[in-house]
Amino acid sequence: MLEKISRVILLKDFYGPLLTDKQQYALSLHYENDLSYTEVAEEFNISRQAVYDLVRRSESLLEQYEEKLGLVEKFQETNRQLHEVQHLLDGGEDDPARVKEAVGIIRALTSLL
Amino acid sequence: MLEKISRVILLKDFYGPLLTDKQQYALSLHYENDLSYTEVAEEFNISRQAVYDLVRRSESLLEQYEEKLGLVEKFQETNRQLHEVQHLLDGGEDDPARVKEAVGIIRALTSLL
Repeated sequence: MLEKISRVILLKDFYGPLLTDKQQYALSLHYENDLSYTEVAEEFNISRQAVYDLVRRSESLLEQYEEKLGLVEKFQETNRQLHEVQHLLDGGEDDPARVKEAVGIIRALTSLL
Repeated sequence: MLEKISRVILLKDFYGPLLTDKQQYALSLHYENDLSYTEVAEEFNISRQAVYDLVRRSESLLEQYEEKLGLVEKFQETNRQLHEVQHLLDGGEDDPARVKEAVGIIRALTSLL
């Protein structure tokens, strides 16, 4: 469940502005502020079922944007590689081989970005 | 003009899949394959004016996506910083101060991504 929440929040960070204000707000209340469907329903003055549908629909839109654009995956991959570089360099300042390996990763990254 | 072409191509790289196939194809023919509006018109069997409108509309959509999401700007900034890191490390393998500065930039980047 935590993984699901993190994913929706991450997708919303990227693609949220492509949703309507209401869709964004519903996701925010449910996933970022941990309100139940019933609590969100009270906030919006709509039925619990309507909130459920709204949240599902909003998540689905975010997933569709990621399916088309893949930018979250791209950012995550970049992030993984930068952590690898950081790991190589941290405390490796005096090791030219580690620095060289780090440079190789960065060069590959910049040629892709 | 070259700057304009590069920008449209860059925006299309990110957000192209959010356009229709026809919009993507028109941009591709005009900007990536350097066909004139008249030549694109022949390819599509529509008027030159219709191609002009199609291309303008497609560009405008791409700009709107970037205005909302800002992901191209974010990628470009990351890229600038990685080039800076590359510059610091390239030939700086034996200079712990340069490596340290590079690590600082990477740490800041990974905390943002």
